Amino acid sequence: VGNRPPEAGIRVPPSVLRDFVQKLFAGAGMRDEDAQTMADLLVATDLRGVVSHGTHQTQGYMRMLLQGRVNPRPEIQVLSSRGATRVYDGDGGMGHLPSSQAARFVAEAAQEHGLAAATTGNHFHFGGAGKYSRFAADAGRIGIAVSSHRWQRQGPILSAATGASPMSIAFPSRDQPPFVLDMATTFVGWDDDLFEQAPFLYFKQLGLGAAAHVLGGILAGIWKSDRIPPTSKWESNQGGFFAAFAVDAFLDENEFYQE
Amino acid sequence: VGNRPPEAGIRVPPSVLRDFVQKLFAGAGMRDEDAQTMADLLVATDLRGVVSHGTHQTQGYMRMLLQGRVNPRPEIQVLSSRGATRVYDGDGGMGHLPSSQAARFVAEAAQEHGLAAATTGNHFHFGGAGKYSRFAADAGRIGIAVSSHRWQRQGPILSAATGASPMSIAFPSRDQPPFVLDMATTFVGWDDDLFEQAPFLYFKQLGLGAAAHVLGGILAGIWKSDRIPPTSKWESNQGGFFAAFAVDAFLDENEFYQE
Repeated sequence: VGNRPPEAGIRVPPSVLRDFVQKLFAGAGMRDEDAQTMADLLVATDLRGVVSHGTHQTQGYMRMLLQGRVNPRPEIQVLSSRGATRVYDGDGGMGHLPSSQAARFVAEAAQEHGLAAATTGNHFHFGGAGKYSRFAADAGRIGIAVSSHRWQRQGPILSAATGASPMSIAFPSRDQPPFVLDMATTFVGWDDDLFEQAPFLYFKQLGLGAAAHVLGGILAGIWKSDRIPPTSKWESNQGGFFAAFAVDAFLDENEFYQE
Repeated sequence: VGNRPPEAGIRVPPSVLRDFVQKLFAGAGMRDEDAQTMADLLVATDLRGVVSHGTHQTQGYMRMLLQGRVNPRPEIQVLSSRGATRVYDGDGGMGHLPSSQAARFVAEAAQEHGLAAATTGNHFHFGGAGKYSRFAADAGRIGIAVSSHRWQRQGPILSAATGASPMSIAFPSRDQPPFVLDMATTFVGWDDDLFEQAPFLYFKQLGLGAAAHVLGGILAGIWKSDRIPPTSKWESNQGGFFAAFAVDAFLDENEFYQE
């Protein structure tokens, strides 16, 4: 956390950076259009100033792809669909691919149903959560995106919910930039004095973290038996939860945007 | 916050307390069945140990009713309905009445649509958020409940989002008690040293508070012109947001409950 721009460096135009990142992912075996999706999403994250989750991640992603731990050519599938919901399977690839499809689906389906939700599973890292909640905000809806990961099991999932799951909520605002909350569900590291002073702080971060793990993890099926090695060839161990709400199902849009 | 049981007091059986509270609300002019709803919800909150938001609140509620600031006989209405969504109007009464209806609606409608959401507006305090997210968890769904209130306006709503909005997420767990996160969106009061040490803590609580205000406040229509005095006779200045997600729209239920 803490996204300070680097103090020294070379300025690169976004289009050049996008092109470079696209070539890297394609070179690691990804389809051209998937490599393009990766480049678009990562550079967009950089441009919002979230340096930690933009192209900065490329090196780590490349390593996972080149070591054969993440599927470079996944076949993204919709496993099931009911009412305003969908379940996506990422086929062991990068999380950005099924997550951007899921985020687009909820943004569109919310118009008909008033709201929509989708989960994604069986994939690797999806990057910063804010870029997915923004799909909804850009379409004039309220968007939520949460992710979770699988870890070495010791006891039930909830008691181990200490990872820093990302959570984002975005609200559209028409002419102005959308309001986007994009954060990890951890607030502070352990500190005896602080715990003494504000114990609820820790209970709350544990609770929010657990909530993220249930939505983006358990519900997204990251523990499904056929998605855990050695059954699955890929280590891809993450899941996501995406929801969108149509503002005008609840309120006259003009009254909403006035606020 | 901080629900320690009182050190001294008289133990009262729940049924006797329920009966007493029901009679108080009925005596203040509420319909018998509405008074019963109030008594049921408040005593259930006590029984969960959330002393701050149970029958402890009765005195304040009675004062608002007796002073004519809250409508004792509201006609709860569904203002609109689209797909899996509904908008409830509380007609200036206690928030518990439209909120429990909305929470019941989303718990049921989520079965057909996979998920559902409702807002409530034009009402007073709805009490602790956890009792509404539990409607969904008791029906085997994941439930969310958020509330917000209107305040003296000074500038746009988001910059004033400092109130302690309640937020709750509940997950069903079959034979075991449900996992319920039930909290205010504030973590700690202002502290210069702590801000220096963990600035994100404050940004995050501000962000979560703002998110609660948009969902449970703006979207729920608490700023609608016809719901603000002097247009409205009642001061009822709160709104709520309720959502439920059907576990089995996303995952085999047995796999979910195993975790």
